[in-house]
Amino acid sequence: MTPPADGTLADLGEFGLIDELARRFEQGPAVLLGPGDDAAVVAVPDGRVLVSTDLHVEGRHFRRDWASATDIGHRVAAANLADLSAMGGRATALTVGLAAPAELPAGWALELAEGIAAECALVGASVVGGDVTGADQVMVSVTALGSVTGDPVRRSGAGPGDVLAIAGRQGWAAGGLAVLTRGFRSPRALVDAYRRPQPPYDAGAQAAAAGATSMIDVSDGLLADAGHLATASGVAIDVRTEAFAIAEPMRAVGAALGADPLRFILAGGDDHALVATFPAGTPLPEGWAEIGVVTDGAGVTVDGGPWDGPTGHLHF
Amino acid sequence: MTPPADGTLADLGEFGLIDELARRFEQGPAVLLGPGDDAAVVAVPDGRVLVSTDLHVEGRHFRRDWASATDIGHRVAAANLADLSAMGGRATALTVGLAAPAELPAGWALELAEGIAAECALVGASVVGGDVTGADQVMVSVTALGSVTGDPVRRSGAGPGDVLAIAGRQGWAAGGLAVLTRGFRSPRALVDAYRRPQPPYDAGAQAAAAGATSMIDVSDGLLADAGHLATASGVAIDVRTEAFAIAEPMRAVGAALGADPLRFILAGGDDHALVATFPAGTPLPEGWAEIGVVTDGAGVTVDGGPWDGPTGHLHF
Repeated sequence: MTPPADGTLADLGEFGLIDELARRFEQGPAVLLGPGDDAAVVAVPDGRVLVSTDLHVEGRHFRRDWASATDIGHRVAAANLADLSAMGGRATALTVGLAAPAELPAGWALELAEGIAAECALVGASVVGGDVTGADQVMVSVTALGSVTGDPVRRSGAGPGDVLAIAGRQGWAAGGLAVLTRGFRSPRALVDAYRRPQPPYDAGAQAAAAGATSMIDVSDGLLADAGHLATASGVAIDVRTEAFAIAEPMRAVGAALGADPLRFILAGGDDHALVATFPAGTPLPEGWAEIGVVTDGAGVTVDGGPWDGPTGHLHF
Repeated sequence: MTPPADGTLADLGEFGLIDELARRFEQGPAVLLGPGDDAAVVAVPDGRVLVSTDLHVEGRHFRRDWASATDIGHRVAAANLADLSAMGGRATALTVGLAAPAELPAGWALELAEGIAAECALVGASVVGGDVTGADQVMVSVTALGSVTGDPVRRSGAGPGDVLAIAGRQGWAAGGLAVLTRGFRSPRALVDAYRRPQPPYDAGAQAAAAGATSMIDVSDGLLADAGHLATASGVAIDVRTEAFAIAEPMRAVGAALGADPLRFILAGGDDHALVATFPAGTPLPEGWAEIGVVTDGAGVTVDGGPWDGPTGHLHF
């Protein structure tokens, strides 16, 4: 869908923008009332709704010169959709808030919406509402609603003896970010991974069905997020680096930047891989691979010892 | 609850801030899983959830020198809670995103949270989750979830012959804003109305039960929002100014500023009054007052003719 105008948000106007955005959001069967009223209404058949909110700020979570508006739409939607997968659930509806300067090209906002809609389509979710407003800086807020079959998988259920496992790519987006930060555009596979993460959306529900005891999506960094599981569960977690095959583009970037590619894997977050714990001996669902163990104690170790590199990203 | 520190968000740190915020949010019975995981889980007994999102940007929706953080918390929560009332429903849960510079005083963020929590308590809603991040400007995103008994009241159901009615104060907040904009701090009643709107939360469900055909909360301006009802319903609406008693502080401000106080009533929005249409002859619930009529046609008139003043606020 091409933007209707070459102008700015100010040219399109608040209600023109809302109309054009709403046209880009197809409404699925769970949507009882879509955009355009004081609130939307979404079906939640089992009487419980999952909800998660994320903020994405230009210059901190994305840069307009590093990724297209469509890519950024995919990215911001993926972050929230993955949160619901990490509960063992699935997203059904999103609301999106866009704050932006009046001189932002309208086409940028509409392509952002198209990226969000396309990412939502991967899990069958609909954008049911939102808000637009002026601001000095582009900011996108995304809230996902969804459902879960059975009990949601929390961060707090890991027990000593469990195995730690991962689903999805890990470290690729961080490698891509490192490349972009230094002004490069290749290896393309990593840059693409940063621009459009591919969270393993179905892996969350599959892990829940297989008996996962705790789960999280890797958004801060693998060690940081494993740390959240350890803290919430009152256990220690040891990550085994031998479990990770270092893919060729990661090796290439490590060599080019003089960095150990393992750092991207252990401290990178933007891929939204899922990390979960399972009782020992649980046959892991397809797509899941064992990467560590849960023991008595506290904190996260790497190969049995302390890790002296970064563990993830802090916002303040 | 007093802030634990005199420092900034950077001093408190991301996870310190999240912990302190979460401590300020009591969890009601509808909350099956509160803050601290990848998503919260909220009970929605009838299998449908209402959802509405608003953004609030410093310098556009609020100023830190015009209202306390607690007041701003009340304001941003009220805007979303009123949206759900305007569907004939009631909010049960909020998520809140806070984007702010690292040098923001931590106490400001915590008092904001206390204001949000206090406003939520008025309707029995809980803050179940959110996100915090750095940004150049303070921005607050609020998403409300809730329930409705029976059919939600949309904007599109008004028919010719219906009466237009209002519940709640209208124009007081706009009067207060006009005062603050000019550097004054009184009349206090209007400034307070701007700082802490008092939406008639229960009036929405009461209107729905009485047979309201359409409803909206006044957030853009009375005439602008009546216009939304008219457009969505395919009708014309005439607002009768004789229906409005001009309260004493409104008269005083009008005289002091050389402005017709009717302008605050017709174009002001921040009170979050509810406006609804009812079939002619419907006994209006307590707190509702007739202010106009619905006819065939399109658009909004005032006392049968065009209105040449402002109708409300545009964001771009």
